[in-house]
Amino acid sequence: MKPNFIHTYVSVDCVVFGFDHENQLNILLVQKHGANSQEKSQRKLPGSLIFSHEDVDDAAQRVLHELTGIKKMVLKQFKCFADPNRASSKADINWMAQEYQPNIDRIITVAYLSLCKIDHKINSSKYDTVDWFPINRVPELPFDHNKIITESFVEIRKWIESDFSIIFQLLPKKFTIRQLFQLYNALSEKQIDIKNFHKKIAAFDYIIALDEIETNVAHRAARYYKFDPKIYKKNNTKLIK
Amino acid sequence: MKPNFIHTYVSVDCVVFGFDHENQLNILLVQKHGANSQEKSQRKLPGSLIFSHEDVDDAAQRVLHELTGIKKMVLKQFKCFADPNRASSKADINWMAQEYQPNIDRIITVAYLSLCKIDHKINSSKYDTVDWFPINRVPELPFDHNKIITESFVEIRKWIESDFSIIFQLLPKKFTIRQLFQLYNALSEKQIDIKNFHKKIAAFDYIIALDEIETNVAHRAARYYKFDPKIYKKNNTKLIK
Repeated sequence: MKPNFIHTYVSVDCVVFGFDHENQLNILLVQKHGANSQEKSQRKLPGSLIFSHEDVDDAAQRVLHELTGIKKMVLKQFKCFADPNRASSKADINWMAQEYQPNIDRIITVAYLSLCKIDHKINSSKYDTVDWFPINRVPELPFDHNKIITESFVEIRKWIESDFSIIFQLLPKKFTIRQLFQLYNALSEKQIDIKNFHKKIAAFDYIIALDEIETNVAHRAARYYKFDPKIYKKNNTKLIK
Repeated sequence: MKPNFIHTYVSVDCVVFGFDHENQLNILLVQKHGANSQEKSQRKLPGSLIFSHEDVDDAAQRVLHELTGIKKMVLKQFKCFADPNRASSKADINWMAQEYQPNIDRIITVAYLSLCKIDHKINSSKYDTVDWFPINRVPELPFDHNKIITESFVEIRKWIESDFSIIFQLLPKKFTIRQLFQLYNALSEKQIDIKNFHKKIAAFDYIIALDEIETNVAHRAARYYKFDPKIYKKNNTKLIK
């Protein structure tokens, strides 16, 4: 006898990171459609079931566009979450029946990482409420969304270690070395040594000093820098050349 | 009206790399069940639909075990392939009907990378025929399996750049620096400079010289080395410490 091969529904979920002025990493969460005030989890990651003629990457681009109004966002597929019990709580089953259709027996999701400058205007065509949440103040979320966020944080670190240019997606176009340090520090597992950081950064010729310093700051005004992607591309980060 | 959300079947496919004595990267392919001699593609990547109570990572471990008889193999999920047309050729539809069941309207697959020492005995409980193919002599395969292999090759490079210890999974326990060089070269997009390579390798204290040299070789006998995972772990490869 052949084993029981089931069909399943497939969705995408997007973890969008931003870096705020208090030097914290933030994540975009949306209000759950039809959530009632009794429910614990009023928020969720932005996501959607994929359409019949849609690849998962296209579905993720659609979700990000409906979420932010931004046309092309940096995005990276990072993991398929397919625990058979990931959508088996009563609240999750009810919500799927209401949002999509009844009798969804199994749903797996393909998770994406994306990065956004936090000052970018969010202009959602789909969601009434879209908010930034500092990652240490993310509430309890439905499905395995808290787990997806935890794993996305490991993934964003790996992404930046393997391609340092990605970090500049989270910074304003002109930034201070302090901002870059604070972002790198927020992304790291352990406290970064500031002296080592300055030494390394000084050797990165794709970080260009500008003729401009901060204004209206309480501390000593720091110089602004910009990132040059062309110079970065020339000096690839291969281990052995 | 709600859009048409379809259900789909989900499979896993595994690209297992090995490194042979002619310094070529190889991939494990299996004989297609029920392939007739008229069919162009007699081979495919090892894979399977996932079972009802199985996560995708568990399905990939099952496929690898059924394929090789090896219990724990290094494996890495790398991408979900979900092009709506990836399984729409007549031959592919017929094969799915015969192997699984009729009327599979859409199948998406989660692809995995795995690494195997090529001398390891392959003892498959599922497939009659399992063979190594040099990656430049992989035949035309069903579905998008050729595309999956092409992308897996980009992925294995990234994996080794981000975690150099992975490369030793492809080498014998004791190896020469020539073997390590040839493997790294086979994995690289461009020819590696041998002098730079030696200089870098000499600084890697986790590559330990043994009191043993090659025997029965036509060229000058070279020293054997081994990889020390403990020393490697201590010296992490972070960009900035």
